Amino acid sequence: MSDKALVVLSGGQDSTTCLYWALERFGRGGVETLTFDYGQRHRVELECAANVARHAGVPHRVLPIDTFAALGGNALTDAAQPVPEDSPAEGRLPATFVPGRNLVFLTLAAAWGWPRGIHDLVAGTSQTDYSGYPDCRRDTLDALERTLSLGLERDIRIHTPLMRLSKKETVLLAAELGALEAMALTHTCYRGERPPCGTCAACVLRAKGFAEAGIADPLLAR
Amino acid sequence: MSDKALVVLSGGQDSTTCLYWALERFGRGGVETLTFDYGQRHRVELECAANVARHAGVPHRVLPIDTFAALGGNALTDAAQPVPEDSPAEGRLPATFVPGRNLVFLTLAAAWGWPRGIHDLVAGTSQTDYSGYPDCRRDTLDALERTLSLGLERDIRIHTPLMRLSKKETVLLAAELGALEAMALTHTCYRGERPPCGTCAACVLRAKGFAEAGIADPLLAR
Repeated sequence: MSDKALVVLSGGQDSTTCLYWALERFGRGGVETLTFDYGQRHRVELECAANVARHAGVPHRVLPIDTFAALGGNALTDAAQPVPEDSPAEGRLPATFVPGRNLVFLTLAAAWGWPRGIHDLVAGTSQTDYSGYPDCRRDTLDALERTLSLGLERDIRIHTPLMRLSKKETVLLAAELGALEAMALTHTCYRGERPPCGTCAACVLRAKGFAEAGIADPLLAR
Repeated sequence: MSDKALVVLSGGQDSTTCLYWALERFGRGGVETLTFDYGQRHRVELECAANVARHAGVPHRVLPIDTFAALGGNALTDAAQPVPEDSPAEGRLPATFVPGRNLVFLTLAAAWGWPRGIHDLVAGTSQTDYSGYPDCRRDTLDALERTLSLGLERDIRIHTPLMRLSKKETVLLAAELGALEAMALTHTCYRGERPPCGTCAACVLRAKGFAEAGIADPLLAR
């Protein structure tokens, strides 16, 4: 393990929890954050990421990547596609799946860290929530860890502290790490609304996690 | 193996040879080409890639990626950095090394192929030439193949027909595949000059390959 960590910060609940996990493990001076501007429909996410990083007192950098918008055909970047409100049918990938996106983000994060001597990456991916994205599963990230270590000639580690946690457990972890105040600055709503719509799949999942943890969502208390 | 292949085409000698390799193996109707516009200093490369694809009669698409230029600090995209003329010292990575670039390109190629049912990628990487890029080695690409197959839930293959060939053998393969005429359309010079400067490391390596194969370089015969 190197003594510096790079947190891939989306501005959402999960990556914010990961930032506080990294702060506890690597210390404030050992943590940087990176957000990808991939042409997301909801620009508020970028603002939320910057606010979270500022609140936590760590450096924050936005890296552009225009490729996914050019690929098109996805509900998260393509305004012509509706964002689905329900989970996909069993065995089908969700309409919000952008093939390879998480792999590209983590590879670019490693590339960003490389000249800075940062070999520990932290990502808020989880295989227990409903998303079903295959590039968020731990076996995929184990393979990526090996790929990056070979391809960059460094011992790259991808930390995924939320990988096997339920949303309830993630909320409890955030409370334990002192990340609840920062939660008020995060963004979750798939419709990009603030205050959140409360009815899209992402809002419903978030609300369920806080309810089951018995903690009021600071975002709604504002 | 799927019945369609996607060739990552840089407009250079190696990827052009790979295109003809793919044509032989997958047939003209089974081959598409993809070039990344990553902000390369020498825009002529993009033009060469388009000319090669047109000459071969296959579809060609340019995908933008603005991230590497934003990362900066590299001789291939950063005009402030000189392109080195010599090979790097033993055990050191070359100044033209862009961390993770080949991994990102292949991941995005797989993402481009995914909705099109293309699971066979072809890349002109070689571990026998002087480049020493760790993300071009076969062990790295084996790991990436596994990562992509898990992360995209498809049986992705990365073909690297030149991996263990010398430059001489690559030239002989190009001749065997009927790719020599297309060689006149390719670009190799690190200085971006046409006709090529003949003295940069890339020009010298190309010349050596043709000389050892006993074949005149069609690019110089024009």
